[in-house]
Amino acid sequence: MSKEIKKIGVFTSGGDSPGMNAAVRSVVRTCAFHNIECVGIYQGYEGIMNGDFEVLGARSVKGIINKGGTILKSARSKEFRTKEGRKKAHDQLVKAGIDALVAIGGDGTFTGAMIFNEEFGFPVMGIPGTIDNDIFGTTHTLGFDTALNTVVEAIDKIRDTASSHNRLFFIEVMGRDVGHIALNVGIAGGAEEILIPEEDLGLDRLVESLNKSRTSGKSSSIVIVAEGDKIGKNIFELKDFVDENMEGYDVRVSVLGHMQRGGSPSCFDRVLASRMGVKAVESLMEGKTNYMVGLKNNKMELTPLNQAIKGKSKINLELLRVSDIMST
Amino acid sequence: MSKEIKKIGVFTSGGDSPGMNAAVRSVVRTCAFHNIECVGIYQGYEGIMNGDFEVLGARSVKGIINKGGTILKSARSKEFRTKEGRKKAHDQLVKAGIDALVAIGGDGTFTGAMIFNEEFGFPVMGIPGTIDNDIFGTTHTLGFDTALNTVVEAIDKIRDTASSHNRLFFIEVMGRDVGHIALNVGIAGGAEEILIPEEDLGLDRLVESLNKSRTSGKSSSIVIVAEGDKIGKNIFELKDFVDENMEGYDVRVSVLGHMQRGGSPSCFDRVLASRMGVKAVESLMEGKTNYMVGLKNNKMELTPLNQAIKGKSKINLELLRVSDIMST
Amino acid sequence: MSKEIKKIGVFTSGGDSPGMNAAVRSVVRTCAFHNIECVGIYQGYEGIMNGDFEVLGARSVKGIINKGGTILKSARSKEFRTKEGRKKAHDQLVKAGIDALVAIGGDGTFTGAMIFNEEFGFPVMGIPGTIDNDIFGTTHTLGFDTALNTVVEAIDKIRDTASSHNRLFFIEVMGRDVGHIALNVGIAGGAEEILIPEEDLGLDRLVESLNKSRTSGKSSSIVIVAEGDKIGKNIFELKDFVDENMEGYDVRVSVLGHMQRGGSPSCFDRVLASRMGVKAVESLMEGKTNYMVGLKNNKMELTPLNQAIKGKSKINLELLRVSDIMST
Amino acid sequence: MSKEIKKIGVFTSGGDSPGMNAAVRSVVRTCAFHNIECVGIYQGYEGIMNGDFEVLGARSVKGIINKGGTILKSARSKEFRTKEGRKKAHDQLVKAGIDALVAIGGDGTFTGAMIFNEEFGFPVMGIPGTIDNDIFGTTHTLGFDTALNTVVEAIDKIRDTASSHNRLFFIEVMGRDVGHIALNVGIAGGAEEILIPEEDLGLDRLVESLNKSRTSGKSSSIVIVAEGDKIGKNIFELKDFVDENMEGYDVRVSVLGHMQRGGSPSCFDRVLASRMGVKAVESLMEGKTNYMVGLKNNKMELTPLNQAIKGKSKINLELLRVSDIMST
Repeated sequence: MSKEIKKIGVFTSGGDSPGMNAAVRSVVRTCAFHNIECVGIYQGYEGIMNGDFEVLGARSVKGIINKGGTILKSARSKEFRTKEGRKKAHDQLVKAGIDALVAIGGDGTFTGAMIFNEEFGFPVMGIPGTIDNDIFGTTHTLGFDTALNTVVEAIDKIRDTASSHNRLFFIEVMGRDVGHIALNVGIAGGAEEILIPEEDLGLDRLVESLNKSRTSGKSSSIVIVAEGDKIGKNIFELKDFVDENMEGYDVRVSVLGHMQRGGSPSCFDRVLASRMGVKAVESLMEGKTNYMVGLKNNKMELTPLNQAIKGKSKINLELLRVSDIMST
Repeated sequence: MSKEIKKIGVFTSGGDSPGMNAAVRSVVRTCAFHNIECVGIYQGYEGIMNGDFEVLGARSVKGIINKGGTILKSARSKEFRTKEGRKKAHDQLVKAGIDALVAIGGDGTFTGAMIFNEEFGFPVMGIPGTIDNDIFGTTHTLGFDTALNTVVEAIDKIRDTASSHNRLFFIEVMGRDVGHIALNVGIAGGAEEILIPEEDLGLDRLVESLNKSRTSGKSSSIVIVAEGDKIGKNIFELKDFVDENMEGYDVRVSVLGHMQRGGSPSCFDRVLASRMGVKAVESLMEGKTNYMVGLKNNKMELTPLNQAIKGKSKINLELLRVSDIMST
Repeated sequence: MSKEIKKIGVFTSGGDSPGMNAAVRSVVRTCAFHNIECVGIYQGYEGIMNGDFEVLGARSVKGIINKGGTILKSARSKEFRTKEGRKKAHDQLVKAGIDALVAIGGDGTFTGAMIFNEEFGFPVMGIPGTIDNDIFGTTHTLGFDTALNTVVEAIDKIRDTASSHNRLFFIEVMGRDVGHIALNVGIAGGAEEILIPEEDLGLDRLVESLNKSRTSGKSSSIVIVAEGDKIGKNIFELKDFVDENMEGYDVRVSVLGHMQRGGSPSCFDRVLASRMGVKAVESLMEGKTNYMVGLKNNKMELTPLNQAIKGKSKINLELLRVSDIMST
Repeated sequence: MSKEIKKIGVFTSGGDSPGMNAAVRSVVRTCAFHNIECVGIYQGYEGIMNGDFEVLGARSVKGIINKGGTILKSARSKEFRTKEGRKKAHDQLVKAGIDALVAIGGDGTFTGAMIFNEEFGFPVMGIPGTIDNDIFGTTHTLGFDTALNTVVEAIDKIRDTASSHNRLFFIEVMGRDVGHIALNVGIAGGAEEILIPEEDLGLDRLVESLNKSRTSGKSSSIVIVAEGDKIGKNIFELKDFVDENMEGYDVRVSVLGHMQRGGSPSCFDRVLASRMGVKAVESLMEGKTNYMVGLKNNKMELTPLNQAIKGKSKINLELLRVSDIMST
């Protein structure tokens, strides 16, 4: 039988994403609702090892639901990857009387949590916070929806100038080694072509597609390039390739960069974060451990951390087809 | 065996919602992709009866994916509710050689389409376009996600001034006789209380809740009121009630109104619209009729129109509970 | 000769406006730059009387430049209008060793500061913070530019739905008894008519204008109504009047309300706030008192508080004419 | 005595900027108001030479006031730089009965217009449309204010992630060889340092400034780099320099790129565009030629084109000082 949970620690780790603060708020308030003490841990795993803790009450998280970034800060930790580091972390948690951890982050964060759980039997629960949507066991990671809107707004702006000048734009978007962001913003931004890691379009097909687009009467074009795309050229080389091999194009490149990670979370991400925080705390209270909370069929479901990490979230093939039809 | 579809008419009807243009674009481009002729019909059912048609090619719908409202306009029609009106409409469609209709709108629109299909055996396919999310057979109607973000941004602004002045705000949001918008924006906007038609909280509980909120140290409060709420008082009467029955409150009212219907659609709504347009056209091509396309478990699914209309989409009870916990 | 200023108190008062936080930040950092101690005063004049003070260093105001509302809160005070109240306030300031005050607010705030200065010879400097732009001595009050953008974005959304349905919208905007907001957003929002307190258009001219607009081929129309307009009817009565006296209009009303006061300040307002804070502190250091800092010909200039209050900022008649021409 | 103006041509040229459409609309409607025929010219000077003309009435420019880019398209023309090209252009204008031109663009556009005017005595009037604000004779060029807000919103997002990770960000913004955008967004975005072409800070001062910022307790920093900055290193080299010469920094680079040129114009830019269009048309009607309309002391004023081009708009030194104080 599992020990009663009286004190929960919460932290954010890895790349930040919009909705992390809303998730922290939810964990804190759910604890308050159930009369569990809640401790905020700063700087991720570094903070656990250093005992960088602060007790958080319901009012401590006032006014953060709409803030991007994470008030608990995030950091990558080399030391926690060592057994000594994790021992130090465990000592700090025991010393502070913390019974369980809620870890908000991506697969690196979850890997750390899983190992920590296996080594010390310490209860952990994961909340998937990353804009990349590259976690198995949830249709949406926290921040994905917000990042999509941020990128689409940027594409809309670039299209204004693209169509005024009859230009071709290559726009690089985030997503690590999956194409979720690229595929969705490509459709929503009316892109003529979308280059994603899951599909090797090849340069010939790209040239063919651009020529078709030009022939069909389009005077300006946008091509979305996922940062993890495997076409064999980076986005500036792509521009050079088109400059050299195709005539009549005025090609420009835009790398959207880190602004994609920030901003006030969308309604969807705020609600998702609130639901995930409740589910995470209550699952720990029920004695569950080593799981990630996720959204499946509009319900909160648990997935074992090892599955969440290994099983990669797959591209929706229907979207690829929709994209092709839309660029008719 | 169903007749081959060579020409499809598309129209928008009822209250407009963000994403309608993206859906029209998708229907037009999917037709172009399959070499089907596409006809845009202006002013909804009025336009069918008046033969207000325009052939739309792939380039005709350029640059509309990010525009709110509907380029095909919308209107309510009394005449179409009569048998004579519908006969007139059928004559126009036959005359123009239109084989099938894609109707974008809400339950009023679908009721018209269903009756028309039953009377004339004319192939129809519905796309749910309304911000209210009050249609059965889809987890999201077109425009719902955008409206949620629009409302949440407004609430964020109101909260700035509410917390600067320690005020209590009653904010009325749309949603007809369901509380989907209110419930989601209430959670995302950090509301202390949410009044929805599905739950009769009662004035006493409201007063109790506000007092609890004040006692717990909150200096400003926001209460979201769904326009269809059945607490027995409109939002201005609510203000008067609190003014008279509770001390120390500086109460203000904000009715967000029609701005909730407009604006550039979110990434989610643009992708959803694109998927729905493809599914609608291809379903008609497969001989399907009298259905609505919808999103279920992240897939496109068909629901018979009569079920879409009768079965009301239900409030997610988990969200109600999350809302209660978050206002701790 | 004026006494050296070693400690400055800063407060916000009256209706809040976007940019107040940026101004507080600027006052605090300018003090830090000049090695002057800075004290934040909560709740405006109430806070002075109650000694609700907090020492603010350069790092205390981190991360607030982009926040709406005011971290120092605002309140209206009846007690400060009495001689006893002001005596109490003076005692608190003396006790805390505060040598001068920077008052951020509108004419009510400035009236209080001026009387206080006259009675006690206490150095005061005003920063005009109000969305209404109704202060003499500055072309722009803090928050005016942000409010204009907020309102225009709302009008853009309403126009989406107005033009989809061929509707006439009356939209009420803030501005107290001046028409600055209405006039600017009317032009920027493409309104067919603008009703402002400075010009009594009369109902007949309104009807004539709407008819002309209809005749010229406009299918939807937007009329902006300043809250202080003196046409003799409130906005709902205007709707009723048109419903009764004009045919073929589907009229709707939207009262934008308090969301106009909130939101992250525009670049313009943040820069203006930063400039004003520097000027306010350095003017006090130079021994100036009883002035308001303002923007004139793109330069920071001082205006005596009594002139700022009495002289009302006038409507730019050129804009009225531009509005008429644009609605051709 | 100047000939009566009966037909005006309007075109956009050079880099596009938000507000160009609003200016086109204003020119068209002012012509309609005065019963002057208006002709839209596509693709700038290319379009004049090719006779790419379209008559525009008041309703033709409906719904464009809030659109970024330019419906008249823009292009750079080599041919127009030749005497033959300009002769061809003049022939087309005479053939079409066009009496005068309104040219919307930057200094390249104005140079062309001025030469054309000198060679053929053809009446021209300039409207300054560029985000860079690098034109003499107006405190604001069209699009400058919108671009400032676009950039500041991006900086706000980047700061979310910067402060979550304690990072140093170099952010490159547009502005050609002047620092107006950089200086304003640097202040508004709370940057620790701003590198502009007008001031050679030097690498040593930059290092010193960053160290001071770190010492004063700032854990994250943002440095704004104007694209025309003359520090002798591009933004990626700056990053490498800091990586190599300073310890403890996690440095990132973001080049905001072309999204800065797009987007719906701010209220300020829409009003400015409307005023400029009226002034441009009415000045031509009064027989004025070879001028640019501009905003000076909140009034519309004319500046001879040759002065507008030669005299560069100067950096406001007060802003540089404000920036220094704010980064205390």
